[in-house]
Amino acid sequence: MPLPQALTALAPFLGQRLSTSKSDLDLHGRSESYFPPMPPDAVAYPQSTEEVRRIVEVCAQEAVPVIAWGTGTALEGHASAVQGGICVDFSRMNRVLEIRAADMDVTVQPGVTREALNTELRATGLMFPVDPGANASIGGMAATRASGTTTLRYGTMRDNVMALQVVLGDGRVVRTGTRARKSAAGYDLTGLMVGSEGTLGLITELTLRLSGIPETVAAGVCAFDHIDDAVNAVIDTVQMGLPLARMELVDHATAAAFNAYAGTSFPECPHLMVEFHGRPDAVAEQCARFAEIVDDHDARGFEWSTKEEDRRALWAMRHNAYYAILASRPGARALVTDICVPVSRLARAIEETRADLACSPIAGPILGHVGDGNFHAILLVDPAEPKELAEAQRLSHRMVGRALDLGGTATGEHGVGLGKRDYMAREHGEGWQMMGAIKTALDPHGILNPGKLVPPL
Amino acid sequence: MPLPQALTALAPFLGQRLSTSKSDLDLHGRSESYFPPMPPDAVAYPQSTEEVRRIVEVCAQEAVPVIAWGTGTALEGHASAVQGGICVDFSRMNRVLEIRAADMDVTVQPGVTREALNTELRATGLMFPVDPGANASIGGMAATRASGTTTLRYGTMRDNVMALQVVLGDGRVVRTGTRARKSAAGYDLTGLMVGSEGTLGLITELTLRLSGIPETVAAGVCAFDHIDDAVNAVIDTVQMGLPLARMELVDHATAAAFNAYAGTSFPECPHLMVEFHGRPDAVAEQCARFAEIVDDHDARGFEWSTKEEDRRALWAMRHNAYYAILASRPGARALVTDICVPVSRLARAIEETRADLACSPIAGPILGHVGDGNFHAILLVDPAEPKELAEAQRLSHRMVGRALDLGGTATGEHGVGLGKRDYMAREHGEGWQMMGAIKTALDPHGILNPGKLVPPL
Repeated sequence: MPLPQALTALAPFLGQRLSTSKSDLDLHGRSESYFPPMPPDAVAYPQSTEEVRRIVEVCAQEAVPVIAWGTGTALEGHASAVQGGICVDFSRMNRVLEIRAADMDVTVQPGVTREALNTELRATGLMFPVDPGANASIGGMAATRASGTTTLRYGTMRDNVMALQVVLGDGRVVRTGTRARKSAAGYDLTGLMVGSEGTLGLITELTLRLSGIPETVAAGVCAFDHIDDAVNAVIDTVQMGLPLARMELVDHATAAAFNAYAGTSFPECPHLMVEFHGRPDAVAEQCARFAEIVDDHDARGFEWSTKEEDRRALWAMRHNAYYAILASRPGARALVTDICVPVSRLARAIEETRADLACSPIAGPILGHVGDGNFHAILLVDPAEPKELAEAQRLSHRMVGRALDLGGTATGEHGVGLGKRDYMAREHGEGWQMMGAIKTALDPHGILNPGKLVPPL
Repeated sequence: MPLPQALTALAPFLGQRLSTSKSDLDLHGRSESYFPPMPPDAVAYPQSTEEVRRIVEVCAQEAVPVIAWGTGTALEGHASAVQGGICVDFSRMNRVLEIRAADMDVTVQPGVTREALNTELRATGLMFPVDPGANASIGGMAATRASGTTTLRYGTMRDNVMALQVVLGDGRVVRTGTRARKSAAGYDLTGLMVGSEGTLGLITELTLRLSGIPETVAAGVCAFDHIDDAVNAVIDTVQMGLPLARMELVDHATAAAFNAYAGTSFPECPHLMVEFHGRPDAVAEQCARFAEIVDDHDARGFEWSTKEEDRRALWAMRHNAYYAILASRPGARALVTDICVPVSRLARAIEETRADLACSPIAGPILGHVGDGNFHAILLVDPAEPKELAEAQRLSHRMVGRALDLGGTATGEHGVGLGKRDYMAREHGEGWQMMGAIKTALDPHGILNPGKLVPPL
């Protein structure tokens, strides 16, 4: 048994920061969505890159799996220990190492959360704009190529990670990228690591591109009788090139779930929520142009505000939607779908998904980052009823097929993990084998987050 | 000898489109900069992905090198046939396959040039914004991760290539990416191919993100007595977040070379040239803000215009700078440097480079995309004088060391090829070995553009 030997080798330098307590293992084996618990054999809490390096070196020697852990907010079972092993929890590597306001960049440890980072940045007038909803760790966000509500304007993690320090599967420590705004110096290793979900290396340091905190932020919301009108308003807005910072859709079921959850009285119909960032006059003009577009699509009651308290109230529904939907069926777990299609195909993708849901016993409120063509149906299932899970998987399968047929992807932002792995062959064809070849080249012993993302060996 | 067998296998289906004429070989062995001619053994002109696949399959079988060729405008010897082999010239695969205006994307063959693409797009109100100066092929621009004057606003090829079709070294045809605006579906294979310089696969189709042709384009220019003032104006402008589309510097030597080349009478001192894209009022306001900034740095005669003929005249110096500089010393060849540093370090990088040049007999006019921290010294050498080349290489070496010390990169946009390969170990450390491992995994026989970018086997 290699595991006891690995633990024996790790104990001297990790001490109390190597845990095999049941509560720790359970915590690191759980999932935010429908996956059953798959706990690791031990949890390590390193405090430095050097400690991470030593952990990986020991695990490589003993052929023990190594699974990186940020805040545990992944939705696709990314951190499930399917083959056991050591979970590397980065919560003690959570420092902001250097803010360089003049270059608008920052270097951080992977365990810092996005909210903690933005709190530290506030005095500089800068922000890290990527917002996946959850208060995830920056390392986890990079590993899963997170995006979220602000992608329209600021891009995904792919666009906002400039450089990384990574521990490879054999314990080598590599720096990828530089602080230069662009480079043509060979393969984009930073881009390869972003979205590799812990299967190619453990991220121990990140340099991020920052954005200026906008002078004015204006948020607006409007309601529609029909979801088609809302979606067509989205398509027109994107095609007119209106520079939105956020554009989100929630359907009538999400609005109803939120009212029940928060005691509010939003009209129980589809809503669009938007946000504009910029100089006051530009923002006001953009709100006016958006009002005209939604008016053409029979929107009701478009209101916008630049006051922070109004914006908070307005966004509360979107930000709490996932938990409100979960609460709408006590005891249920969610299978979260995440397709993303070219914007011109969005109306069709949503319409066909709704038609599927209408013929199914499974509830699936729809919401999403529609400005990017990305939306989620939150499929609620009773974890004790295998038939329900099977039906949800059938619906999810049809959504993915539809997305690929329309020129899109199985996952816009949640990643592959366990939940979307079966779709990779269809989405990438031979490209999935290429991913496997890269994985084998960089992690020949297959110890880094095994059983995820790439084809089975 | 495997080559004759490869030619025998290729001749039946390529016919006249397989050439071994001396003029063809010479044309495909030349370089735009200081490298000696290194011609291939044959040039193939495929007309389809299937023909490319068959060429690669034959070459894989016979272990014959395969080198992709766009328009031959690379500056670092990317397409030099250092080990001979078959040059695959994509000039007959130059069609625009599908324009999807509603999604603002386009699918093209690799041989279409950027100017031809923009001509075809004109009626749609859309454009492909990446502009490296040369009228390069889109496939070559992707392969070298090209950028250029518009990167500030529109990004590099990395940001504008959505999906690829690629023929791998064993003849497999792979599609990477989708038309969705974002995806978290595994490793970013598209990003890995962009900038891989023909060493991982041959690009046979590209889907590109398009941008709207701006309502108004305003271009402006001003002169400075001292280059430090110009650079400090750049730094202030970037740090204020002014949304420039272009911001270019030329030094006094470049201005003088241009006057001699074009018979103009620009003041022979450093100039900044800028361009703003947007709505008329926004553009006017941005020009006014820029005027204030440069005024603080003692600029002279800032003028701007939205008329196309004025803009053309204004940009003529920048667009013809390379050829004007070459013409300033008849018979000379250029060793072109390409460092890129964080913007806060730009003043120091330029100042120290100028100090080096001042102590050297080599002329090296400076110009560049300073808004990104990227600049070039065009080091002019007599190709018949090895001492001059050695001195230019010494200067280049010092520039690269300086860039890396300042947190930057050896090459902002020209790529590695032959000319920057010796700097990769220093820039990437173990990361260069990682690139080698990826190369070996995806091209195990090493037939794709051998002798470039990655470490020697």
